[in-house]
Amino acid sequence: MQIGMMGLGRMGANMVRRLMKDGHECVVYDINPAAVAALASEGATGANALEDFVGKLSKPACIWLMLPAAITGRIADEVAALMQPGDIIIDGGNSHYQDAVDIAGKLAPRDISFVDVGTSGGVWGLERGYCLMIGGPVAAVRHLDPIFASLAPGAGASTPHAADRDTAPFGYLHCGPSGAGHFVKMIHNGIEYGMMAAYAEGINILKAANAGKRKREADAETSPLKNPEYYQFDIDLAAVTEVWRHGSVIGSWLLDLTAGVLKDDPALANFGGRVSDSGEGRWTLKAAIDTGVPAPVLSSALFDRFSSQGESEFADKLLSAMRFAFGGHVEKKKD
Amino acid sequence: MQIGMMGLGRMGANMVRRLMKDGHECVVYDINPAAVAALASEGATGANALEDFVGKLSKPACIWLMLPAAITGRIADEVAALMQPGDIIIDGGNSHYQDAVDIAGKLAPRDISFVDVGTSGGVWGLERGYCLMIGGPVAAVRHLDPIFASLAPGAGASTPHAADRDTAPFGYLHCGPSGAGHFVKMIHNGIEYGMMAAYAEGINILKAANAGKRKREADAETSPLKNPEYYQFDIDLAAVTEVWRHGSVIGSWLLDLTAGVLKDDPALANFGGRVSDSGEGRWTLKAAIDTGVPAPVLSSALFDRFSSQGESEFADKLLSAMRFAFGGHVEKKKD
Amino acid sequence: MQIGMMGLGRMGANMVRRLMKDGHECVVYDINPAAVAALASEGATGANALEDFVGKLSKPACIWLMLPAAITGRIADEVAALMQPGDIIIDGGNSHYQDAVDIAGKLAPRDISFVDVGTSGGVWGLERGYCLMIGGPVAAVRHLDPIFASLAPGAGASTPHAADRDTAPFGYLHCGPSGAGHFVKMIHNGIEYGMMAAYAEGINILKAANAGKRKREADAETSPLKNPEYYQFDIDLAAVTEVWRHGSVIGSWLLDLTAGVLKDDPALANFGGRVSDSGEGRWTLKAAIDTGVPAPVLSSALFDRFSSQGESEFADKLLSAMRFAFGGHVEKKKD
Amino acid sequence: MQIGMMGLGRMGANMVRRLMKDGHECVVYDINPAAVAALASEGATGANALEDFVGKLSKPACIWLMLPAAITGRIADEVAALMQPGDIIIDGGNSHYQDAVDIAGKLAPRDISFVDVGTSGGVWGLERGYCLMIGGPVAAVRHLDPIFASLAPGAGASTPHAADRDTAPFGYLHCGPSGAGHFVKMIHNGIEYGMMAAYAEGINILKAANAGKRKREADAETSPLKNPEYYQFDIDLAAVTEVWRHGSVIGSWLLDLTAGVLKDDPALANFGGRVSDSGEGRWTLKAAIDTGVPAPVLSSALFDRFSSQGESEFADKLLSAMRFAFGGHVEKKKD
Repeated sequence: MQIGMMGLGRMGANMVRRLMKDGHECVVYDINPAAVAALASEGATGANALEDFVGKLSKPACIWLMLPAAITGRIADEVAALMQPGDIIIDGGNSHYQDAVDIAGKLAPRDISFVDVGTSGGVWGLERGYCLMIGGPVAAVRHLDPIFASLAPGAGASTPHAADRDTAPFGYLHCGPSGAGHFVKMIHNGIEYGMMAAYAEGINILKAANAGKRKREADAETSPLKNPEYYQFDIDLAAVTEVWRHGSVIGSWLLDLTAGVLKDDPALANFGGRVSDSGEGRWTLKAAIDTGVPAPVLSSALFDRFSSQGESEFADKLLSAMRFAFGGHVEKKKD
Repeated sequence: MQIGMMGLGRMGANMVRRLMKDGHECVVYDINPAAVAALASEGATGANALEDFVGKLSKPACIWLMLPAAITGRIADEVAALMQPGDIIIDGGNSHYQDAVDIAGKLAPRDISFVDVGTSGGVWGLERGYCLMIGGPVAAVRHLDPIFASLAPGAGASTPHAADRDTAPFGYLHCGPSGAGHFVKMIHNGIEYGMMAAYAEGINILKAANAGKRKREADAETSPLKNPEYYQFDIDLAAVTEVWRHGSVIGSWLLDLTAGVLKDDPALANFGGRVSDSGEGRWTLKAAIDTGVPAPVLSSALFDRFSSQGESEFADKLLSAMRFAFGGHVEKKKD
Repeated sequence: MQIGMMGLGRMGANMVRRLMKDGHECVVYDINPAAVAALASEGATGANALEDFVGKLSKPACIWLMLPAAITGRIADEVAALMQPGDIIIDGGNSHYQDAVDIAGKLAPRDISFVDVGTSGGVWGLERGYCLMIGGPVAAVRHLDPIFASLAPGAGASTPHAADRDTAPFGYLHCGPSGAGHFVKMIHNGIEYGMMAAYAEGINILKAANAGKRKREADAETSPLKNPEYYQFDIDLAAVTEVWRHGSVIGSWLLDLTAGVLKDDPALANFGGRVSDSGEGRWTLKAAIDTGVPAPVLSSALFDRFSSQGESEFADKLLSAMRFAFGGHVEKKKD
Repeated sequence: MQIGMMGLGRMGANMVRRLMKDGHECVVYDINPAAVAALASEGATGANALEDFVGKLSKPACIWLMLPAAITGRIADEVAALMQPGDIIIDGGNSHYQDAVDIAGKLAPRDISFVDVGTSGGVWGLERGYCLMIGGPVAAVRHLDPIFASLAPGAGASTPHAADRDTAPFGYLHCGPSGAGHFVKMIHNGIEYGMMAAYAEGINILKAANAGKRKREADAETSPLKNPEYYQFDIDLAAVTEVWRHGSVIGSWLLDLTAGVLKDDPALANFGGRVSDSGEGRWTLKAAIDTGVPAPVLSSALFDRFSSQGESEFADKLLSAMRFAFGGHVEKKKD
């Protein structure tokens, strides 16, 4: 079927390629003409302006937005202004689910459907397929089923599309009304933060398994290591993460990637340790707070990222200042 | 090759079965004669006492202990008393790695090797193979290579056993001297706690996505939900965990099991929510503390288990008592 | 000076009493006529309806709302509808600071000032005075200075009110424009949650200092206590919290109250351990998330309250279910 | 009465001064002769060697050790070798309580008493008095009562010393047998870490209350601030911490110091943010783990200190590496 894709970055462009491989007709648009030209040369129909883009779509027009969260709302408004009753806007980006609820509410009176699709798979999605978490009106979601089936890992355009079949095993799922897709994706990312941190913390302790070999300062500001004889191991982190991939309880795709990372660059010399967060970990915690659900692991994972961004500095200075104030403890220099 | 297995519980018995399937000769012993008889009927050589057990082993004797952590040390002493120079004791249980360091140190002067093998795979290991994290002297570990190759998922008795080959891709790894195996397994379990909690917390928030539908009390002791319109989703947890298995970043074996669990028993009616911990999560944190490595996610996961065991009760009573003392807040009844 | 007080609950009534003691004229109103009558009998001017209440105030009318957060916004609208340019509305309740920003913005075009006053002191404020954190336009805040001086602990009506004097040492502070008062109070409560939890956790460990005396089950689902000889102390919690009040680094007013609580009811038999949260701890975390500031301690304190409310139950059931699924671990019964 | 003090650092020297002010006879020793000479010039009896020190004490000899934790055990052994039945060794340092249990057990057969005294008060103790948490045999503790009464804040040498009187209100307490004093002090410090972190986190969020004024990058690696209009406050941190000291629920001695710190150096320019930990926070968590008591707040506080020491760096690099591996996210530079 035909689909319009707007936003041809890393994710959007690869999704177009995966769709074309399955025989879908893709009309594409981006403010960067080079991105349009690249996909046009691979078989997509390029557009050079928003009006041109919308005009090239047959009815009902289905436009998939794959844009940074910060601008999705504004662009959705612009796109919607050009659309007709029966048309469908899909937001596949990392937008806040509450925005999806709001936009869907605004568009419903004009009979334009808004479908929010949480999309996981990263740079590997082109090859592995994308896991799709979908929110929106039933009719629109069903209409788009061939698109979802082609993007997801396990089905493809040739799969028969029965109305009520269970699509989860194929890698896509209609989770509920508008907003439900991004809500589920938000939680997905919250879990992702927690899992990543679990691996990172554990591997960091493994790395310190030789702490007993290091000479430790013995001053009043340094807690001594009582039993250095128990911390004499030089663990091969790449080998350990590799062995865990085979038969252990903690095997996962993230572990597969982690083992590869540690094999290629055991000292992680290419990284400085400033960990970004892209919004969904934050929103997950806000949802936990709103609903009164404890999330100590997910919050610890998020706050470690904030700390890695330097945001605990003032608090830490204050702790040192308090220690000096009550105990005369002079702060040690940073290494 | 021949191996003696002592401790024929869920793990030990299945390991014997997996070894026999690969042609190894297993001498087995347990204080429970029925467990011995069961495996004898499947082809193992049974023993009826510790002396009998040791006596049936050719030299060098290799005895694998698969026992509860609480008794492993005592039994290892009893077994060691009956062994000769050149013999090997293997501890495959969830023992503390520091005990392995200590026992190995005691046995080394008698030329008895102590090999600690962290074993992951649970009840699925018989079929999938066990991930083995191994610590001990090089010679003993190499001697046991055929056993490890058969227990692990990816190799098998027919694999050529080159001296220095990379075994990690087959699912077993010599991690370092005595203690290193259990150290790595300890961290493995610490990570496991963190991953499990990440899923559990995220799914718990998903379950609360319909909080806006519930009537909430509006008293001074209850924080109101400001935007109930954003919490109107009834999420199908089994379907969501199923879809995440296909192409998402958080795919894992634990998620595979979780999706199965939620499909069979969506309300988890078979469980009360008292989560045990078996020691290695605790030891992981102690190692983090000793080495000064931050582990906020792993500790949050452990402490949640303690809370589930009722151990936060007094602290919580104290919080309610403080609130009453400074603000006259009368505690609400537990549901 | 004259002030109108609406909302005569525990806090509002006591504030009226403290103001009258300092010679201020209080006009009072509440939907509960008995609350009005009680204060009228102590010298306040009672009102029997909102219009009556506003009508009894001389110009500029100053109305202090001391209401549950859930209704403050609606009542503020009703009150504002009856007010004139130059009048002042004060919100002394536990409202969200963002509401204060919004309401102030709505009222400014009508030249009605909105002053938000975070009020700490609880049931002790009548006697000790209230700590006041104030946000709003400079002119309105200055106009109300005599009221603030009387409510706060350290000044009183007889203090000379120089325009730019430093009022913080007297226990009240103009923190910034509308919203700043409730923002500072929000953070105050966030810190309060953290401090309370620090005491509660520490005291809970003290209580467990005799864990080595308890017979512990030795099964595969229970982590053994390796060195029971180190956990043989029966600590007198009331005595310890009392001694900490004298000269230690952790002395505080909360500790004063805690020592009293433990003296009167060492087993805390009057409490069940369900700890409410009244909103500001939640908002503090949302502010931390919005601004990217790590708050692991404050969030741990909040999430423990959620757990005490039973909200970790499903997550804990899921953990038990996972443990059964991968390891065959049968859940232990809750005590 | 007479007391020998060994270790004349910041704490030990001031304790001698406080004791002499109350008329006690102090014999003093330190490996640094200048420290001995200084106190001798103030009226103490100096000693120039360990034997000289012990020899100058009348029977029963009472020796108070005020030494770094790392050497206390060794020195206690050396001192004990020179002592007679009936003598008393007091350890007032930040030693591990388990060492006190062990040392007391070794000395008991020789009828030498070991008294462990957790000492809080820091550099302010000379003036305010020290809060003393005492463990040891009843007879020895009673014998030392005049010393404790003089060191503590609230009593003094003139207080009548009834055998069973409640000393907690005077600032010293016999908490139980040997080890109990340091156990209670350990928990005290654990709580201290939690309280300090609660203030530091809260104040750090206050500092960020103007985040909406800062220009924030709008790229895919930066989570946008949705409502900058709510983060426009420039909060005067020194003034806010000052006002909280007066009548609020979070008043404390630590807050008194914090307000002073922020007044003198609002930007905390004298500190770099590397926060040391001196052992007792670590031991508190180990005790929590051993006894199965949840301590999420205290552990979060400790782990933040580890992070401030740079120990999360490898974990954070790993997180960035994972993000690059699955999503192609290029790490942002540290500021």
